[in-house]
Amino acid sequence: MPNISARSKAAPASPIRRLYPLARRAQQEGKKVYHLNIGQPDIPTPKAFLRGVKEADIDVLAYAPSPGLDVALRALESYYADWGIELREEHLLVTTGGSEAITFALNVTCDPGDRVIVPEPFYPNYLGYARLTNVEISPLTTRREEGFHLPPLSEMEQLIDGRTRAMLLSHPGNPTGVVYNEQELANLVELALRHNLFIIADEVYREFVYEGTHRSLLSYPEVADRVILVDSISKRLSACGARVGVLASRNAQLMEAAKKCATIRLSAPTFGQLGLAAFLADPNYRELIKGMIREYQHRRKVLCDALHEVPGLTFRRPEGAFYIMIGLPIADAEDFVSWMLTGYPGQETVMLAPGEGFYATPGEGKDEARIAYVLKEQDLLSAVSALKEGLKLYHVAQQAPTAA
Amino acid sequence: MPNISARSKAAPASPIRRLYPLARRAQQEGKKVYHLNIGQPDIPTPKAFLRGVKEADIDVLAYAPSPGLDVALRALESYYADWGIELREEHLLVTTGGSEAITFALNVTCDPGDRVIVPEPFYPNYLGYARLTNVEISPLTTRREEGFHLPPLSEMEQLIDGRTRAMLLSHPGNPTGVVYNEQELANLVELALRHNLFIIADEVYREFVYEGTHRSLLSYPEVADRVILVDSISKRLSACGARVGVLASRNAQLMEAAKKCATIRLSAPTFGQLGLAAFLADPNYRELIKGMIREYQHRRKVLCDALHEVPGLTFRRPEGAFYIMIGLPIADAEDFVSWMLTGYPGQETVMLAPGEGFYATPGEGKDEARIAYVLKEQDLLSAVSALKEGLKLYHVAQQAPTAA
Repeated sequence: MPNISARSKAAPASPIRRLYPLARRAQQEGKKVYHLNIGQPDIPTPKAFLRGVKEADIDVLAYAPSPGLDVALRALESYYADWGIELREEHLLVTTGGSEAITFALNVTCDPGDRVIVPEPFYPNYLGYARLTNVEISPLTTRREEGFHLPPLSEMEQLIDGRTRAMLLSHPGNPTGVVYNEQELANLVELALRHNLFIIADEVYREFVYEGTHRSLLSYPEVADRVILVDSISKRLSACGARVGVLASRNAQLMEAAKKCATIRLSAPTFGQLGLAAFLADPNYRELIKGMIREYQHRRKVLCDALHEVPGLTFRRPEGAFYIMIGLPIADAEDFVSWMLTGYPGQETVMLAPGEGFYATPGEGKDEARIAYVLKEQDLLSAVSALKEGLKLYHVAQQAPTAA
Repeated sequence: MPNISARSKAAPASPIRRLYPLARRAQQEGKKVYHLNIGQPDIPTPKAFLRGVKEADIDVLAYAPSPGLDVALRALESYYADWGIELREEHLLVTTGGSEAITFALNVTCDPGDRVIVPEPFYPNYLGYARLTNVEISPLTTRREEGFHLPPLSEMEQLIDGRTRAMLLSHPGNPTGVVYNEQELANLVELALRHNLFIIADEVYREFVYEGTHRSLLSYPEVADRVILVDSISKRLSACGARVGVLASRNAQLMEAAKKCATIRLSAPTFGQLGLAAFLADPNYRELIKGMIREYQHRRKVLCDALHEVPGLTFRRPEGAFYIMIGLPIADAEDFVSWMLTGYPGQETVMLAPGEGFYATPGEGKDEARIAYVLKEQDLLSAVSALKEGLKLYHVAQQAPTAA
């Protein structure tokens, strides 16, 4: 098959993809691998959500309306109202996960070759969405020692050129856990106004805030025409497999363009939308989410306390989401994780996501790794134990490589 | 909100979108509108499918693996084997509907600005997928009087230039109902070999063949490296809202690129995949599909017999799918349908999809309309009655416009 070749516009293989085969082999050899590398929550999906799916009275499983099922849109209206965010049905579009919402947002803000500013480290799939829509990412580097908070306005401005159309940011942040403060949000708003940019605000971790409060970019009336909310039920309902997200904006022209994108793909999955509507109809839904957040808050404490006992690690306690970016006392995090899966002698080992995969700037993040605290307390403690022991032995192995 | 404007890469509004508000208004005024314009089947979704969803034992609704759930992939392997199409798991990718499969196929065959040959009239969303992936469509016009069969090889060749990367065709055809014969398929294969093109074969109506047999493009070993199958369960399982489709190819490099696209959007919906697996595990599933096909075959007969009684219509009985493109004895089908919804005095009226929306070549199809026979026999007959009466009165109204 030599004469015809496919194009691959998607992002190149990230470190994490190279490590997966090693993790599988370790498991096949009987090792226990703690996966701190993925953001797949272990929290049970709420019963009300699953009941909404199981008890659905369906004769013909027809296409849902492209913008979303009425019951889902009405439920979302009241969910956002609870957050003090007034959105009417015409401002809302149900998408196939947050992924599709970001793809739509890039499609309706950018022409091919246009640029979007993204604070790095960022969620690696952003690069994939950008490549598939022929958009370029201009990375705005943030620093571990500053808790990954944004640089001053003047520094952000330097990234803007004639092709810059939007900013894309997750708030609270994946992989950093950063929650932007009032000053930072005001700077973003000012930047958007001054340079005529859209703000694509990925707020899928809205509830996952442990210090301070979360303020939505949608709460600034002066940028009502240029904020695009990207949302998802995946994490807050522990319903990643439902594939239900949201795109929201108060810009009517933009929503019209986004709804055209939605028409082309016909509809978002019906079952997930029914589950969402049933969950939000449960009078206890706020308490259910709060209970889940308390669990993550507890895990954050457990994890951070344990990490503090590991010599050489540098990190700041993240303010939100369920991730933490740590600095490792080694030069190459990917090499270390690879060794943890292939060279480390313990029966229990750990997989982290090497930091490099979260940066677009070459060379950044090589000594960093992301941890997702989506495991139970005891598993988190065992994982950190393995990490601690691994770091000790890795240094020895490095000094005497033939002995590894 | 004047200072910032969204981009709209999606296709411009088609005739059918302009007609929807008129249909809604007619309904609000108490009229019965027979929707012959949409391909949403009225056949109940099989119980086995729905049971697979309702009885799923789910604690955490996690992301499915990006290429698809194992149970879904194994079920698909055996489904294709039933059709004599040998596909292994690595050749298959579960997608979020056929829509996503086509988008992926365009993404992995074309760079921005590349061209794809599409026989017209074609499914209008093809234009949307092409615009969102920055691909251009080169329309290959086919004719109603030839039953929309393909022109000779030499005519197809004239469309090819240095940027042509693929052919995209639905077989059986939407909106034409054409089923390509052995000679046409051989020509397509020859064209792909001679000019190094991919063939994106949309075979979602595989079972819907009423004359002759369906041969998959995947059955030609000489183009095994360049055929990409696009498939969907929406129509054959009457499960449009599940959002489950398939992309399949025996080209390993292409599948690798497609799976990267799949990784970026994380996963296809879990519930739909579970329903599919449950349906295909039902020992009676072939009979269930056959029963549904018999029903459509009956409707085709009922519809064609009734249409033969309408003066001035021109059409050939379609060989497959559940659509028929008819020629109307009028100059402007959109104007006629618009009048049927606003000016026609009957209490029961009919909505058709104007033909123009299925062509990329300007001016083509203006006197044509597509009918989808997804309604019950009696409704089809009532709809054709209204059409017949409407055509008679429309001519009168045209001659005396002030009397309309």
